[in-house]
Amino acid sequence: MDKVRVFVPAHLTGFFEICNNSKLLSMGSRGAGVSITNGVLTEIMVEKSVNSSIEISINDEKRENAKVSQFVVNEYLREINNDNFIIKINHTIEFPIGNGFGASGGGALGVSYGLNILMNRKKTRNECAQIAHKAEVSNQTGLGDVISQTYGGVEIRLEPGAPGYGILDQIFYPSNLKVICYSLGKIDTDSIIGNESHKRIINKAGRNMVKRLLQDPSISNLMKLSYEFARNSNLIPDEIQEILSSLHEKGYTDSSMIMLGKSLFCISDESNISEIKDIIHDYSSNGVLIVADIDNLGARVVN
Amino acid sequence: MDKVRVFVPAHLTGFFEICNNSKLLSMGSRGAGVSITNGVLTEIMVEKSVNSSIEISINDEKRENAKVSQFVVNEYLREINNDNFIIKINHTIEFPIGNGFGASGGGALGVSYGLNILMNRKKTRNECAQIAHKAEVSNQTGLGDVISQTYGGVEIRLEPGAPGYGILDQIFYPSNLKVICYSLGKIDTDSIIGNESHKRIINKAGRNMVKRLLQDPSISNLMKLSYEFARNSNLIPDEIQEILSSLHEKGYTDSSMIMLGKSLFCISDESNISEIKDIIHDYSSNGVLIVADIDNLGARVVN
Repeated sequence: MDKVRVFVPAHLTGFFEICNNSKLLSMGSRGAGVSITNGVLTEIMVEKSVNSSIEISINDEKRENAKVSQFVVNEYLREINNDNFIIKINHTIEFPIGNGFGASGGGALGVSYGLNILMNRKKTRNECAQIAHKAEVSNQTGLGDVISQTYGGVEIRLEPGAPGYGILDQIFYPSNLKVICYSLGKIDTDSIIGNESHKRIINKAGRNMVKRLLQDPSISNLMKLSYEFARNSNLIPDEIQEILSSLHEKGYTDSSMIMLGKSLFCISDESNISEIKDIIHDYSSNGVLIVADIDNLGARVVN
Repeated sequence: MDKVRVFVPAHLTGFFEICNNSKLLSMGSRGAGVSITNGVLTEIMVEKSVNSSIEISINDEKRENAKVSQFVVNEYLREINNDNFIIKINHTIEFPIGNGFGASGGGALGVSYGLNILMNRKKTRNECAQIAHKAEVSNQTGLGDVISQTYGGVEIRLEPGAPGYGILDQIFYPSNLKVICYSLGKIDTDSIIGNESHKRIINKAGRNMVKRLLQDPSISNLMKLSYEFARNSNLIPDEIQEILSSLHEKGYTDSSMIMLGKSLFCISDESNISEIKDIIHDYSSNGVLIVADIDNLGARVVN
């Protein structure tokens, strides 16, 4: 049984604008965010067989409803006319799922990179990512994660879409930065980006944000605009707002909500980590705290 | 005096097609190639001053005619209305210059990344690379190096232009590959890509090569198409043809000419390096031999 392992960084969106398009590959979002070194490690095993079976697990627990990974598997099986395969997939997810870290995009990319190799599908990096993007967008689980996770870094999504369709740019940043994330739970992405009234508020808040970031493409401006976006879009849960207010008050202004989760992220010099942790824990201690680096490499095979 | 160091990988073009455009940012080439871990290390120092002076060196030797670096400096000075600065630039070049390794693109990217920081110009990665691309294209020193060197990897240039304008894709490749390069001297890029009859032959040979590579985006197909291109474009110098024939005869078929230099490159498993060296040295020993890895990171600040 052939086996491949793929790592995909988590991706935190700071602000975004929903860009509908009848073509899935051009649909997506404009916006900006950051990829981090905690991610999704996908292990895939494929074996030719007389019978077909597909088993998808998350953190070693079998799941029946892993619709995004399943979508990617179906695309590959369709291409080869459903030859019989035993496919086993396990996603090890190094962050809380559903909290705005791009778990679905990471899983989709992992499956696509892996099946491309194991089924000898001869796809390029863009082509693999395009299938993952389609899986995300058609399941309404995300809009801009896949193109961001493909390349990593601190990205500006200038134009929406999958790699090869969307246009990505990146911000330079000093080394020694850390990304501190704190999560209190889920927000159902589908219920936000699938709801017309939410969409109108988001797009009003997100309009011109990319343009304003390009005027000063720095971490501090990214986070300032992200916080402005989060407040104007009325998306910040009260518990998260409380912590963010305190962080800003104490000078940690490079802090905002993670889109879309009951979560926040703060970008800061390594030396401030313990103080930032203290501020967060003054308000809440039952969430998940992650300290990560910025990931510059994007999705990659790690065999 | 503030100082920044930028590393840019060398870039070897396997095949290409010249794509003219009245807009410099959209002009360039379709084609494919590989970025390697030998590169251009650019060290820049900038100081505000009452007088202006610009000093450009290559390998610590002052040059009066470093026109591509000078073009980039001028673009930055123009933006700030020629405020007075003392600018010192030194390019350390880890490969033979003018032999098809993308020295000019590497130098241009290095200067652009560096001046963006030192002059606080608030540019994104694409914006820095766009200035470098303009410097290359308007000096006819290269067409596709800058976008390739910005991202690294084994690239397919699907559409011509600078980052943000051209469309890049990448080929997956196994780890443990090495790139063996051998150079016997210069070919003047300007005399080839500036000559109408050469251009016609090149574009005839390069047509459909990207499409054919996409059908099987692998190292072996890249090198097969590159060798076909090199032969059909009548660009292979006799001394290089002799060595390439021998390499192919002995099974090292992932070998072709570097566009544009009196140079060849061979991609192979690490274990074959000494045999490949022997084959080359059977024909020639007065050239420069480099063994490098594929560079996946692209241009980067290395302070």
